[in-house]
Amino acid sequence: MARPMALATLVHPTGYHTASWLHPQANAQASTSIEHYAGIARLAERGLFDLFFVADTPAARTENLTAFSRMPLFMNVFEPLTLLSALSGMTRHIGLGGTASTSFGEPYTMARQFASLDHLSGGRAAWNVVTSANDYAARNFGLDRLPPHAERYARARECVDLVKRLWNSWEDDAFIRDRAAGLFFDPAKQHAVHHEGTHFRLQGALNIARPPQGHPVIIQAGASETGRDFAAQTAEVVFASETSPGDGRRFYTDLKGRMERHNRDPDSLKILAGMPVLVAESAQEAEDMHAELQALIHPEVGVARLSMDLEADLSGLDLDAPVPEERIPQKARFHQAYFDHIVGMIRNERLTLRQLYMRYERGNRTVRGTPTTVADIMEEWFTGGACDGFMLMFNLLPRDLKGFVDSVVPELQRRGLMRENYAGRTLRENLGLFRPPHPAAG
Amino acid sequence: MARPMALATLVHPTGYHTASWLHPQANAQASTSIEHYAGIARLAERGLFDLFFVADTPAARTENLTAFSRMPLFMNVFEPLTLLSALSGMTRHIGLGGTASTSFGEPYTMARQFASLDHLSGGRAAWNVVTSANDYAARNFGLDRLPPHAERYARARECVDLVKRLWNSWEDDAFIRDRAAGLFFDPAKQHAVHHEGTHFRLQGALNIARPPQGHPVIIQAGASETGRDFAAQTAEVVFASETSPGDGRRFYTDLKGRMERHNRDPDSLKILAGMPVLVAESAQEAEDMHAELQALIHPEVGVARLSMDLEADLSGLDLDAPVPEERIPQKARFHQAYFDHIVGMIRNERLTLRQLYMRYERGNRTVRGTPTTVADIMEEWFTGGACDGFMLMFNLLPRDLKGFVDSVVPELQRRGLMRENYAGRTLRENLGLFRPPHPAAG
Ligand SMILES: Cc1cc2nc3c(=O)[nH]c(=O)nc-3n(C[C@H](O)[C@H](O)[C@H](O)COP(=O)(O)O)c2cc1C
Ligand SMILES: Cc1cc2nc3c(=O)[nH]c(=O)nc-3n(C[C@H](O)[C@H](O)[C@H](O)COP(=O)(O)O)c2cc1C
Repeated sequence: MARPMALATLVHPTGYHTASWLHPQANAQASTSIEHYAGIARLAERGLFDLFFVADTPAARTENLTAFSRMPLFMNVFEPLTLLSALSGMTRHIGLGGTASTSFGEPYTMARQFASLDHLSGGRAAWNVVTSANDYAARNFGLDRLPPHAERYARARECVDLVKRLWNSWEDDAFIRDRAAGLFFDPAKQHAVHHEGTHFRLQGALNIARPPQGHPVIIQAGASETGRDFAAQTAEVVFASETSPGDGRRFYTDLKGRMERHNRDPDSLKILAGMPVLVAESAQEAEDMHAELQALIHPEVGVARLSMDLEADLSGLDLDAPVPEERIPQKARFHQAYFDHIVGMIRNERLTLRQLYMRYERGNRTVRGTPTTVADIMEEWFTGGACDGFMLMFNLLPRDLKGFVDSVVPELQRRGLMRENYAGRTLRENLGLFRPPHPAAG
Repeated sequence: MARPMALATLVHPTGYHTASWLHPQANAQASTSIEHYAGIARLAERGLFDLFFVADTPAARTENLTAFSRMPLFMNVFEPLTLLSALSGMTRHIGLGGTASTSFGEPYTMARQFASLDHLSGGRAAWNVVTSANDYAARNFGLDRLPPHAERYARARECVDLVKRLWNSWEDDAFIRDRAAGLFFDPAKQHAVHHEGTHFRLQGALNIARPPQGHPVIIQAGASETGRDFAAQTAEVVFASETSPGDGRRFYTDLKGRMERHNRDPDSLKILAGMPVLVAESAQEAEDMHAELQALIHPEVGVARLSMDLEADLSGLDLDAPVPEERIPQKARFHQAYFDHIVGMIRNERLTLRQLYMRYERGNRTVRGTPTTVADIMEEWFTGGACDGFMLMFNLLPRDLKGFVDSVVPELQRRGLMRENYAGRTLRENLGLFRPPHPAAG
């Protein structure tokens, strides 16, 4: 077969749907239960997923707490690197991807921890490089507010470049462990880094061997112009958030097109379409399952989520009337695409506030139906050149992942779109990404 | 029985002895083999050890590489938090302690990662708080050199205080997960931290529930006046490095005496005497095993280790003559106790350079002999009021740990000095440390 589709899943503890934690089948303790996460990772591994992925924000909300208590995203979760390290010993094949922000951390520590995870997992680590998008995280790191978008990306560029150089501190065969000569490493194969940049200064070498993958897989999900350029330059996996195959194709062509400027082969970057999916035995059952979760959304949550992404306070407004024009800010500070999407809905569709938040709820655009329907839609995206694979979100975990693994995966295999077993040992090999050679290697 | 002795072990990949990696029984791949570490942790767990501990320096040497290739300490190792997280799923009872320096990291991230480890392990995390002691680590974090001793400890105090407050971001029962009311947490039970200090600024709450242990166990190993005061104020476990029961008793009395000033019960701090041990069936066999490793020390290594701790370059000197007085610096910048110890040996004993480094090699003071001999010495320290337990170092791993677990542990149990099984679920419970109540708890 041609290259099989890549499959990743974004794992929020009880599921992707804001109200999932309220569902009777949800595990109330999920967010700090390693057994729960291990079950999900093993299930995804049974389904031959390439990547188990966790998002992150290094902060808990401290305001508007009643609303956030109704949608407890990131309020009580494992830290990604520690979580993925624990999972490395509980899984064998699946890639382990986590988010870390370049706006707050130290490059040496990030390089070290991801390299360590790559060694622990035998070459299955991936780093989702984000610049963060809120002030309340910034305040946990000595800042009053998040630096402007352009500055964050400049820092991200410098950080990723530095981290990659740190991963190359040693050539692949530097640690010779030659007992006869009494040399643990070949001194000529260390390449210390000397960096004097705008955001970072560093002189030294990483204290761990070059990662099994050469370097952990770099993921990016930037949607802005700057974000896309950054991805074209450095990312090996991109999570896309387009919602139609047409938009997906345009994004795909645009992003792969940008890579030439950076002398990169378009095949060295895999674009995974973000897609919430829900499969059931019948179309009606899928609708019912979907409606059941939608009905659990508390109005306060719906309004708060909208407020967050519109960057405006919509509380206190009539739920059954449209959002007044004067409540809409002039421009987005944090996330342009979310902002534009909401403003578009308000201006073009004249929805009531309630209709707006139900429509905006991220579970709402769930691709749903029978295994055949879901496989059809995935096939259309994949063979139509809109993606190299999918970043799937499951509204309720582990239920919806299990349904997918048991029914859609075999269907995709029958169609020759998915492999029958893990082809490689490392995440890179499974994704069909080349292993970056060490710059000093002949 | 009275409180049983606490047992910890400091794990360097192939063992504590500088030359251990050269031994035919050493696992050449040890330093990045999780199976190797897991084997050691499980073995220690079989021996009912309280704590598996890894030291750390966030840096690799970049100078004098031939010498360091002959003693590859910290040149190629897992990062502690990722390593311990992986081990959390591979062990059930033993505490997992790791070193992190307060001189370079972000308190929010340190608080988060140790809290996450505590949740992953069901309450088995411990943090060895160090201020680091070399310039080459500082250069990985944007500094030209390490800040002065007093400043490092001031920063450490502020950091530990802030981290503890972050661990108290939520009351123990904050996450009510009340589906009927639709509230995941009780908003009144979040206690956000507002901190404007000398070294750190932070406004926010940790995004993980209060750790199972209330907070992870705080370890310290400061030897200086400032270090001891800091330990008396905040540590719950202290690694001592005295080498005779008399000195041990003096240190013990001094440190526990300092606690009163901080209104702390002496029993809330456990002092573990650092002790390299080697057990064999006969005294002669133990001597032979010891000599075998000592003979593997390369002169370049012996001299480099001395140079490091004397903070002077001793290379090029005649190995069979005493160290000339003019090579001795006026005072130590990094580690006063090591410095004083070496200067004392040079001035008082007139050893040759070769004798000096053989004597100074940390494996040299290994307590060794039959199970009875080793148990006798431990009993003398323990019952004589020189310690609450031991931080044991094994020169060759897993060999020497296995010998200890198989022979000395049963002997200590027969003498009523060690328990027969793990008494508690958490590290705190096993050590007999109380769980810190949340400040807001009635
Ligand atoms: C699937 C997916 C996962 C993401 N995960 C995170 C995350 O974990 N943390 C984060 O701060 N941002 C995350 N983002 C946001 C992106 O990193 C990025 O900031 C956003 O798409 C806006 O693009 P821009 O940064 O180019 O403006 C994610 C986006 C997508 C589509
Ligand atoms: C058993 C033991 C383990 C130690 N582990 C570390 C370590 O992992 N990293 C480190 O930088 N220092 C470590 N130290 C050094 C101490 O933290 C401390 O810096 C040293 O004892 C000097 O004391 P002072 O800081 O009060 O001057 C250790 C010391 C002992 C006795």
